[in-house]
Amino acid sequence: MTVLEKFRQGDTRALSRIISFVENREEGYRKLLGRLYADIGGALRIGVTGPPGAGKSTLVSCLIRKFREEGKRVAVVAVDPTSPFSGGALLGDRVRLQDFPDDGNVFFRSMATRGASGGLAASTDNVALLLDAFGFDIVLIETVGVGQVELDVIDTCDTVLVVLVPESGDAVQAMKAGLMEIADVMVVNKSDRPGADNLADDLKYALHLQKRDENAWEVPIMRTQAANNIGIDELFEAVNGHSRFAKENGYFDAHRKEQIRKKLFNILRHRFQRELIETLSGREEVERLIAEILSGRNNPYQVGEDLYDRFVRKNGTDRD
Amino acid sequence: MTVLEKFRQGDTRALSRIISFVENREEGYRKLLGRLYADIGGALRIGVTGPPGAGKSTLVSCLIRKFREEGKRVAVVAVDPTSPFSGGALLGDRVRLQDFPDDGNVFFRSMATRGASGGLAASTDNVALLLDAFGFDIVLIETVGVGQVELDVIDTCDTVLVVLVPESGDAVQAMKAGLMEIADVMVVNKSDRPGADNLADDLKYALHLQKRDENAWEVPIMRTQAANNIGIDELFEAVNGHSRFAKENGYFDAHRKEQIRKKLFNILRHRFQRELIETLSGREEVERLIAEILSGRNNPYQVGEDLYDRFVRKNGTDRD
Repeated sequence: MTVLEKFRQGDTRALSRIISFVENREEGYRKLLGRLYADIGGALRIGVTGPPGAGKSTLVSCLIRKFREEGKRVAVVAVDPTSPFSGGALLGDRVRLQDFPDDGNVFFRSMATRGASGGLAASTDNVALLLDAFGFDIVLIETVGVGQVELDVIDTCDTVLVVLVPESGDAVQAMKAGLMEIADVMVVNKSDRPGADNLADDLKYALHLQKRDENAWEVPIMRTQAANNIGIDELFEAVNGHSRFAKENGYFDAHRKEQIRKKLFNILRHRFQRELIETLSGREEVERLIAEILSGRNNPYQVGEDLYDRFVRKNGTDRD
Repeated sequence: MTVLEKFRQGDTRALSRIISFVENREEGYRKLLGRLYADIGGALRIGVTGPPGAGKSTLVSCLIRKFREEGKRVAVVAVDPTSPFSGGALLGDRVRLQDFPDDGNVFFRSMATRGASGGLAASTDNVALLLDAFGFDIVLIETVGVGQVELDVIDTCDTVLVVLVPESGDAVQAMKAGLMEIADVMVVNKSDRPGADNLADDLKYALHLQKRDENAWEVPIMRTQAANNIGIDELFEAVNGHSRFAKENGYFDAHRKEQIRKKLFNILRHRFQRELIETLSGREEVERLIAEILSGRNNPYQVGEDLYDRFVRKNGTDRD
């Protein structure tokens, strides 16, 4: 039996192998994704982001339990583009996810890149598609919300939870990080700690300032103590509430359409870059132009324009 | 007088304005860079990287003093793509650079991106070109060495110093981060602290494992206590030594050529992306394709291939 056949029969080892194949962008991975695209059943993607130490992993465990109560199959993708200097604390933390029974209904995959951030969002999206095609109902994408890469990752999700804790500082920091704009549900975790009220108030005010369309989803601020399983039922209802709202009001489809547009953009860009590398390496004419630039007789900006006009031609718009 | 004329007369305020113009990629910034390219006088670019807390800023101050003793004009570009959650400690640390006399011979520019990491390396390179064209002899590029973005930034430098401290952990971490491969000079700073000998030994062993060409530069491991100005003369000599070696052996020109190739790559890619965004937005045909993908009748990988073949055509190789 081929790995693909095993995948289609629900073999999680085959799933893991195919994920690695796609993650490593091995020869033919796009063709494979194209074939599996037909198997996609519309898994819901839920993103969970926030600063280190906010208790995201514990919260994710709580959510898995709720989904399992409803009989849903859940996959978790933990994206951790952390510096090698900060150590592996985040991943160690996630070992708790192994607490769930090994019945194939909860699957965990870590995507720790450690240095190679390029294309991480695209990779995560590909992996989420595989998990969807494999048959998971829910794909939870957990990431440390600290940079553009992580925002891109989380942007592929249908519902986004931003988790903050009183000690993580104020709501202003979250705004600066661009987290307020992407939040569908705000979570104040460890809400028994001092400062929780202030944080919730600040978040409420900051969300108010965002002045969304009055028909838009109103971002709820949920208080939880994930470690004690407090506030999880209400959070779960808020997550489902957003999902229902988005589907009923067309936001869900609109967002997915934009994701497809971005995916096309990335596929085209990636292929262009590959051809560009070929073109810029070893061709005699290019070497001559580089030598001209090095000697100061020409400049890269001018040469770039010239090469572009000759190398790339728009086909569509010129002829429409 | 125009800003450009003031720039050419050595007005640092004009320099700052033009840097912002280029950093923000305002309309016409490439044309301006193309014009200023002729003014480039071959400033040496020295990169200083390492984990937070390694004492890079102090070390940079020491190096500035040495270069000033030789009458060299020095510009510092501090690149700090730090998370908003980690606060502004790094930048605060750099205020010390203001200690130098305000005579236009030492210039400091911070490039804190806080979220928008895309194109940071290209921006840093553009700013370094401006500083070169303005008349600085040395451009010091300081960055926290934690991810691919920072490695790309530092890659534009002619000589790269990697700064570690005993407490920053072992040499293995630095290897994982890709720092060993880019180092031309290794610095063990705070070398009076426990563990300095071990760190130096580990680095020596790790560098040995890299097995470079026997004609290649042998990366020296320098011990410093920057806060007490200890070991700085020796470090300065090592930096100059690498620079001489690279120029005499052709490595300097070879590296600059590769940088120009990368720059051309980035210019072409950037322009392609701009056109791609236009093409993928609002065209009826594209909307139809996206709807097909959303409904499951097609997949993005196939559509991507089709769009590429129609949208982009190689001009050069097909006709050569």
